[in-house]
Amino acid sequence: MQLGFIGLGTMGRPMALHLIGAGHALAVFARREDAMQPLVEAGAVACATPAVVAEQSDITFTMVTGTADVEQVVLGDDGLIHGARAGTLVIDMSTIDPSATRDISRTLAESGVDMLDAPVSGGPQGARDASLTIMVGGPERAVERARPLFDVLGDSSTHMGEAGAGQTTKACNQLAILVTAQGVAEALTLARCSGLDPERVRQVLMGGLASSRVMDLFGTRMASRDFSAGIESRLYYKDLDIALDLGRARGAALPGAALTMQFINALIGAHRDRDDLSALITVIEQLGVSSDSQ
Amino acid sequence: MQLGFIGLGTMGRPMALHLIGAGHALAVFARREDAMQPLVEAGAVACATPAVVAEQSDITFTMVTGTADVEQVVLGDDGLIHGARAGTLVIDMSTIDPSATRDISRTLAESGVDMLDAPVSGGPQGARDASLTIMVGGPERAVERARPLFDVLGDSSTHMGEAGAGQTTKACNQLAILVTAQGVAEALTLARCSGLDPERVRQVLMGGLASSRVMDLFGTRMASRDFSAGIESRLYYKDLDIALDLGRARGAALPGAALTMQFINALIGAHRDRDDLSALITVIEQLGVSSDSQ
Repeated sequence: MQLGFIGLGTMGRPMALHLIGAGHALAVFARREDAMQPLVEAGAVACATPAVVAEQSDITFTMVTGTADVEQVVLGDDGLIHGARAGTLVIDMSTIDPSATRDISRTLAESGVDMLDAPVSGGPQGARDASLTIMVGGPERAVERARPLFDVLGDSSTHMGEAGAGQTTKACNQLAILVTAQGVAEALTLARCSGLDPERVRQVLMGGLASSRVMDLFGTRMASRDFSAGIESRLYYKDLDIALDLGRARGAALPGAALTMQFINALIGAHRDRDDLSALITVIEQLGVSSDSQ
Repeated sequence: MQLGFIGLGTMGRPMALHLIGAGHALAVFARREDAMQPLVEAGAVACATPAVVAEQSDITFTMVTGTADVEQVVLGDDGLIHGARAGTLVIDMSTIDPSATRDISRTLAESGVDMLDAPVSGGPQGARDASLTIMVGGPERAVERARPLFDVLGDSSTHMGEAGAGQTTKACNQLAILVTAQGVAEALTLARCSGLDPERVRQVLMGGLASSRVMDLFGTRMASRDFSAGIESRLYYKDLDIALDLGRARGAALPGAALTMQFINALIGAHRDRDDLSALITVIEQLGVSSDSQ
């Protein structure tokens, strides 16, 4: 199939390579031209704009950072809407505001273009291993069309409902991850302050009901104090912001998520927004440190 | 070996039965006389007081509810300290305040009696399946002596440090569980308020980084709204109180744990302290319900 892929960062690049590996012809666009190089070497065609990608594609994927980025690559001056033929499909796998997704979807529908929101869980590792969990919103006919491609990219794809339902599910996912990370950071801080080895405590906790993938992944980095690898906290900041906005719109009070957001704010304020989310523990620890001793 | 077991509730009864099953002679005591019946039927000797249990035992286990209960069965008028011979060992598997554990341990040491704190994770299911995770504090020689018995009761036992270190580890464990439960409750509330099926969202989230045993166990009960089974929230209330006390003593700020405690307070205030912890979601949901519509 003739596919397009827009956004070739940490997530998009390995995903696009998997699609080529599955035998599909790929037209690609990335704002940074050098990001297209590995794809071109694998056989993709580099395009000057998202519109040019869409002209050549039956299905066009977008995997960019935030709501404004999706709006730009889809609806902007050179956006894919200006190249997309009626009957084609846009699959946005970025994590963005569900209400923006619904607006973009409606605009595309006026041109006869279907859209799916299909954000993922699993991070860069899941993208590389093609083991992503894909949460899908949009019309059933488009989901059926996309299913074989989702199977190339992930372990599972679940149709959650109409446009935006994938993004809403992703917001719930990120909320659960972040509040769990808050709990892990506090548990390991309590361990350290009590004179226990946080890594030893973490290992014991992994054997019981406190066990979680967050404890496994971020807990290990918290205990070893390696905040360099993984998923930049600014991305979780964006995602939690979406969840809190959604709560506001739906009248759902989310006190734990709001609290955790304050500590991610503090991480951003300390110019540590490119550190891994596990750096959250340093903000929690710092609460117990007097300004004299800093 | 001649063993004693004090406290034959939801946790203690199956644990005591496993010890009998492993071929040990057991003397037992429970405040409610009928709680001893199943153990007597399995071959245990019912005793009139904890002191009488200790008189007959090389190693005496205690598995009661809280700090005051342990203080009573160990140091009270008929407490096991009045029956325990020098050279014997007391293993407290209850979840109590680590500083109280250290005090009790010192008092027993004056009579030549060793003590281990060995609280567990895994709940009633883990007790029945002998798959508990056991967190141990106390002298190394006592841990070596207890190891074969821990192997009868659980999947793993880890020596965390001196007296109280087991209880401290358990406090970290409970903190992580409860803040994770807060995150799961909020994620499923956001899903419901957004028109998605919470159980379907939960299943998708279990496939990704938000996956946790709390999401698996309590999340399922939250989605199905079955708050009758499981672990009574009053027990988690007690445990989180211990973690917050420990944070206070150690100068560790635990904002997430403190927030979750407020919602468990609300659950207690609604006289739902015997509901499963999953009932926490009803408190979160209620935040978004106006008093007019109640």
